[in-house]
Amino acid sequence: MKALLVVAHGSRRAESNDEIRQLTACLERQAEGAFGDVRCAFLELAEPSIPDGLREAIRAGAGEVVVLPYFLSAGRHVVKDIPAEVDSVRREHPDVSISLAPYLGASEGMIGLLLQQAQSD
Amino acid sequence: MKALLVVAHGSRRAESNDEIRQLTACLERQAEGAFGDVRCAFLELAEPSIPDGLREAIRAGAGEVVVLPYFLSAGRHVVKDIPAEVDSVRREHPDVSISLAPYLGASEGMIGLLLQQAQSD
Repeated sequence: MKALLVVAHGSRRAESNDEIRQLTACLERQAEGAFGDVRCAFLELAEPSIPDGLREAIRAGAGEVVVLPYFLSAGRHVVKDIPAEVDSVRREHPDVSISLAPYLGASEGMIGLLLQQAQSD
Repeated sequence: MKALLVVAHGSRRAESNDEIRQLTACLERQAEGAFGDVRCAFLELAEPSIPDGLREAIRAGAGEVVVLPYFLSAGRHVVKDIPAEVDSVRREHPDVSISLAPYLGASEGMIGLLLQQAQSD
């Protein structure tokens, strides 16, 4: 089974973390069989952590996990911190294929989305 | 003339600010007449500021400016800080129509973009 783990920064504001959880619930409804398990994790300030989120997906039966950084720029978190957390679980579970998708800001569809958003009123 | 001002947080990392400037240049190429002027501004840590970005767009001939917050969650910056900066220029230029688009994270197309990104490898 293939799982998707959306990784957000995490915030002191509970509403911001809940926004990520709601987004993840929408993603799960729209994943239409592409991912059998969709969940979120946070780099800091909220639960679950990235390693815990990965472990939950694996416990749910994932043999493959795609980690998607919900970040807009390629800062230290995207370049170093998230890969390091992912690596720690890769070592624990060498039988599971864990891949890192490009961070959201690098998406080819971002320009189209921004233009759509700018014309949404 | 209608202008688009993409507002990002701004970073201590010059590369992150440059990423926004490159995104803005791509947006300008793809705006295809929807916006005669496309530029970016930063809430903090980088130039131009939001008021300066708005003033530049107005100086370039904009009679209407759409401000698009390039932010993923509805935190204080999106709810209070950006609207306050926009208001200050509205008072300076009551003849110019300045509207605030919903922040990026609220976009209806976000789910589709994330699914596309998760399956991009």
